[in-house]
Amino acid sequence: MVDTFIAADWGTTNRRLFLIEGGEVVRTEADGQGAAALAPADYPAEIAAIRDRMGDHPMLLAGMVGSSIGWQAVPYLPTPAGMDQIAGALHRMDDRTAIVPGLCHADPADVMRGEEVQLLGAHAAGLVPPDAWLCQPGTHCKWARLDGGRIARFSTTMTGELFSLLRTRSILASCMTDTVEDGPAFRAGVADGAARGIATALFGVRARALLNGAVDGGAFASGVLIGADVAPHAGPEPVHILADDRLGRLYAAAVSALGGSARLVDSRAAFVAGIIRLRELSA
Amino acid sequence: MVDTFIAADWGTTNRRLFLIEGGEVVRTEADGQGAAALAPADYPAEIAAIRDRMGDHPMLLAGMVGSSIGWQAVPYLPTPAGMDQIAGALHRMDDRTAIVPGLCHADPADVMRGEEVQLLGAHAAGLVPPDAWLCQPGTHCKWARLDGGRIARFSTTMTGELFSLLRTRSILASCMTDTVEDGPAFRAGVADGAARGIATALFGVRARALLNGAVDGGAFASGVLIGADVAPHAGPEPVHILADDRLGRLYAAAVSALGGSARLVDSRAAFVAGIIRLRELSA
Repeated sequence: MVDTFIAADWGTTNRRLFLIEGGEVVRTEADGQGAAALAPADYPAEIAAIRDRMGDHPMLLAGMVGSSIGWQAVPYLPTPAGMDQIAGALHRMDDRTAIVPGLCHADPADVMRGEEVQLLGAHAAGLVPPDAWLCQPGTHCKWARLDGGRIARFSTTMTGELFSLLRTRSILASCMTDTVEDGPAFRAGVADGAARGIATALFGVRARALLNGAVDGGAFASGVLIGADVAPHAGPEPVHILADDRLGRLYAAAVSALGGSARLVDSRAAFVAGIIRLRELSA
Repeated sequence: MVDTFIAADWGTTNRRLFLIEGGEVVRTEADGQGAAALAPADYPAEIAAIRDRMGDHPMLLAGMVGSSIGWQAVPYLPTPAGMDQIAGALHRMDDRTAIVPGLCHADPADVMRGEEVQLLGAHAAGLVPPDAWLCQPGTHCKWARLDGGRIARFSTTMTGELFSLLRTRSILASCMTDTVEDGPAFRAGVADGAARGIATALFGVRARALLNGAVDGGAFASGVLIGADVAPHAGPEPVHILADDRLGRLYAAAVSALGGSARLVDSRAAFVAGIIRLRELSA
């Protein structure tokens, strides 16, 4: 019998829905109905509306839907955690609707919600080995260490949020109007961010503009932040990067520039593989 | 004959005026008429009004008054630079009114305007040795290396501005409402910022609140930023800190916590000694 279910990658801002039949995605939706746009009381009607559109199937919900700003705060599962542990800790809202728990790491303290499906899914799909460094660039970039196919530890860097704050609110904003792309300014930022750290290297955006008339401060600042982010991981072991194409290529360029090696992984395929595996383990 | 002149520490936001007679400050003023509040055409009337209030004396103006947002953009003087070089490069607006040039460092690119008077003044006043590391915490923290009484090189860290952005505009803001003071949370931040860098350690503000119910995120974040700032300088050589009392003690605590030694220097006395020395060399 073909198993059919609906998966949600339900983040703070965005929501992505997948109708999955027999292990294949047959329909998707994406919209802005993230957790920030909804009150807890809104969820039953949202869930019913999704089933009206996509069919009356079981649902598996991952991400901020399970946080204090979502439908219900689901306790974090501690590291180390693999698919078995997560499948065993699904939080059932009713007999056909379950929320995937996020993970926490005790020391240094860190948390994730939603990324765990993609990280473990990358391994489930055969896209990364069981022992590997994985990186999910974004507003809050996650770095996770897989050991034996489980998430052993992880940390979060505020790379994307810092870039956004600097570009819109800081004294550097007027120097950061260029389009960020891989090139000499980005590479110079990568080298300086890795060598001197974020807070020092960033002021170079202003100094380069004042002294040299530089008009590539956005690319330089992006390089500084990404360079500092990847520097501790630019070693002999490859970094597996799960991201959209543009950001993934910037991260890969930074890793390479610092002497490491990077492999781009299809992040959507990783999420789908992860949520299917959880469905198999919990059905 | 007793020399009398008016010194201005004319920053972006604030302006401090000193009437100096025979090497002694006999009157001061401070207000919000910084460079950001004035157009270039406003300065002649401002200068005349100051002389109306403080006496018809020669004036020596330091800081952002000499920038592109001030009265007139005065070219930066390159490092290495001491009092002699700066006194020789004063920019005379008329025969009794001069602007002190800022300094630039070529590689890595960096700039300062106003801080040079305080840095070199600290040495002129005998408050720091001729070969020393000096630190001026603030919105844009300056670190300067004195060699033989001259500024050999310097760098700027955006520590204060990053703290302000994070406390007011970031996802961490709601966890940063506590008063920043030296204590366990600040010290934990110092250790983590030094060990893991800003972008990673800062997310601990949120994770500590979510996992442990921590309500000291402001102190922790301040520790992270200051810890990362001082870490490269927490060695056997003392750091001389020029700052207001509160910020100076936080920086000193962070230097000590990371195994270095810090000495607090009276920043107002340093500025006054510096501007008097420049007056002596240029009169």
